[in-house]
Amino acid sequence: MQASKKVTQEEANQYHSDPTPGKFKIVPTKPMNNQRDLSLAYSPGVAVPCLEIHANPEKAFDYTNKGNMVAVISNGTAVLGLGNLGALAGKPVMEGKSVLFGKFAGINSIDLCVDAYTIDEFVNCVKFLGPSFGGINLEDIKGPDCFEVEERLKKLMNIPVFHDDQHGTAIICLAGLINACESSGKKFEDLRIVCNGAGAAGIACVNLIQTYGARKENCLMVDTRGVIYQGRTEGMNPQKEGLAVDTDRRTLADAVRDADVFIGVSAKGALTKEMVKTMARDPIIFAMANPDPEITPEDAREARDDAIIATGRSDYPNQINNVLCFPFIFRGALDTRSSQINEHMKMAAAKAIAALAREPVPKEVLQAYGRDTMEFGREYIIPTPFDPRLIYVVSKAVAKAAMESGVARVQITDWDLYDQQLHDRIKGSQII
Amino acid sequence: MQASKKVTQEEANQYHSDPTPGKFKIVPTKPMNNQRDLSLAYSPGVAVPCLEIHANPEKAFDYTNKGNMVAVISNGTAVLGLGNLGALAGKPVMEGKSVLFGKFAGINSIDLCVDAYTIDEFVNCVKFLGPSFGGINLEDIKGPDCFEVEERLKKLMNIPVFHDDQHGTAIICLAGLINACESSGKKFEDLRIVCNGAGAAGIACVNLIQTYGARKENCLMVDTRGVIYQGRTEGMNPQKEGLAVDTDRRTLADAVRDADVFIGVSAKGALTKEMVKTMARDPIIFAMANPDPEITPEDAREARDDAIIATGRSDYPNQINNVLCFPFIFRGALDTRSSQINEHMKMAAAKAIAALAREPVPKEVLQAYGRDTMEFGREYIIPTPFDPRLIYVVSKAVAKAAMESGVARVQITDWDLYDQQLHDRIKGSQII
Repeated sequence: MQASKKVTQEEANQYHSDPTPGKFKIVPTKPMNNQRDLSLAYSPGVAVPCLEIHANPEKAFDYTNKGNMVAVISNGTAVLGLGNLGALAGKPVMEGKSVLFGKFAGINSIDLCVDAYTIDEFVNCVKFLGPSFGGINLEDIKGPDCFEVEERLKKLMNIPVFHDDQHGTAIICLAGLINACESSGKKFEDLRIVCNGAGAAGIACVNLIQTYGARKENCLMVDTRGVIYQGRTEGMNPQKEGLAVDTDRRTLADAVRDADVFIGVSAKGALTKEMVKTMARDPIIFAMANPDPEITPEDAREARDDAIIATGRSDYPNQINNVLCFPFIFRGALDTRSSQINEHMKMAAAKAIAALAREPVPKEVLQAYGRDTMEFGREYIIPTPFDPRLIYVVSKAVAKAAMESGVARVQITDWDLYDQQLHDRIKGSQII
Repeated sequence: MQASKKVTQEEANQYHSDPTPGKFKIVPTKPMNNQRDLSLAYSPGVAVPCLEIHANPEKAFDYTNKGNMVAVISNGTAVLGLGNLGALAGKPVMEGKSVLFGKFAGINSIDLCVDAYTIDEFVNCVKFLGPSFGGINLEDIKGPDCFEVEERLKKLMNIPVFHDDQHGTAIICLAGLINACESSGKKFEDLRIVCNGAGAAGIACVNLIQTYGARKENCLMVDTRGVIYQGRTEGMNPQKEGLAVDTDRRTLADAVRDADVFIGVSAKGALTKEMVKTMARDPIIFAMANPDPEITPEDAREARDDAIIATGRSDYPNQINNVLCFPFIFRGALDTRSSQINEHMKMAAAKAIAALAREPVPKEVLQAYGRDTMEFGREYIIPTPFDPRLIYVVSKAVAKAAMESGVARVQITDWDLYDQQLHDRIKGSQII
């Protein structure tokens, strides 16, 4: 396995500053060329849609961009794996997330970096921001605050609120795990799983994996104090309590012995080659810490040539990349004007992503990655981010799940037409 | 005088809905075409600018779009002249404002429609939103709340906070008044002025006009209860107290008798032909209520053929249009990274706009308006919104005032280069 060429600090800074600072801009979609255009776009013409929306709020979806706008909102308290950098320093990540919404799903998105660091202040800011948006993507908020923030905002707002670090990660992780089982002949319900890291992503991953069928007693969570066992009193919170198991194992090294799966949502170097050597046959290693994984793919391979390895990085194979999900789960939610993104929609997304990796890879994807073949197996258990089929299969699966679970306020009936609309969305977002 | 063809309800709605709902979209400014681009735009490359900004917050201007982003923020409690329609129904106006920032000054702007209707809730939301933006344009917030909202946010935030309904209107009104005096041979300091409407715009107009030189005792404010006189007890607030004068006049009809200037920031039909007939020679009538003025230009002209008439509408001559100011006052403030928009900058903007109307009109403006001539005088006391010279003269005047008054954090030294940068800004924002 060969990692693609690493990006340098200079390249990263140049990309962000040249020719203009930042990663997106805002352009009009309507003519603004003369006095008459002004009369339509602003006073007096604009009064007409305002009054119509006042009479019927649903008209906001006809006359404004609300229905295709998502805010990426963060206070920067857990930026990537870098820790609490604060709202301003997190902005490059949030802008990046916003452009990915546009690039992959034709969703208009902006970043809102919120300078509030208590749960109350953050919630009391964000809860009022609904009218301009069709959905809220929470991002890089530290645990355990993120759980309460999301739960409170979901109750207070009438649009989907989705903490991507929790659910996006969990969805892709589940998709990868479904396929790693398929590829290695392991039975999902028998998997012995270790999750290192009990923050937002770890808790959400294990919850979703258990919802899909893993047994609670087979899932060991580990945090910086070691295994989260029943009866542990230090460094606990309600989310950890919910996942604590009855076990004698206490350290990460104890926990991974004979385990089928290592899920890393922790920090660089947390998993050693020695630990990997003690895992069960065909060990499944998802080392997702960003930017530096818990163990490098090179080291993991050196320790075990039967390993199935995935990371969070775009420069290795099998990237557990949230971009496979968040643009499309929001696309499906927006297109059905869903009031929330619920468990049915998340599960539908995970299954659709897993199924796609088992389909033959189209030529354009091979060309994009400079590969002759790309076949379902240990080095390809997850679709690549540039797979053009993703928007169609994931958005549709999510939209259908929204309709079936009763949270859709608009029903899609003509799925061929919807395909065409998705095609147009993507086309419209490619201007640079 | 002939008004241009009015826009119909159908045209307004179609403009807002066809081919896509709303008036702007968001596009990437950086390549996003392959795995390597992803590595730069998002993890792992994005960590580099994040860490640099964490070490030095000023770097946010190099690596993010903060320095060219303005939020148009409203709770919709005073939408145009239509009243309290609420945050959602105000969205078409706010989106319109955002696209005008882009069209006229190359500023990226988004609307934030805030569902908060008390001063505390609104302020406690907006005060945290600074990191993503270089400036905050408050819009369509009802008086007197708007005064306290703006004052509190200015103290709490380290970027310019500018309530356009107050200051933008006041700046253009002052510019028009300077030129109406010039055109009619009236002395500014002797003007007898009546302002009908004591909300955000009215208070700000009269304050700025007095700062420029009008005498306090010559300025009568009128609200729905009549003239605001010293000793009046009903319907007062601190802003009205500050402008109350010692007078026996009690009604609008009383007030306008022998007045030189009527400033209308009130409602349709407030000024009658009979009232106009009682005004002084060459009466200056700025009937700025939107979408319907206090008196139609046709009626005002019928009452007095020596009148100098302006409205807030884009389909009549002499439009008191905030778009002549807000894009450029923010342009100048952003380009100097000013911490605020102060009185010096406002006054500089008003004088620059007034001076521009006294310059010969370039051919392209005549062509745009289908006119053979357009000369300084009663029918042309204010530049037209599509005058391409505005960005150069107003932004530069504002930037200079910012530097001279000590609020600029970046000094512009090469004004020819700045001209070129302004040119590029405009060019970059014309994509549809």
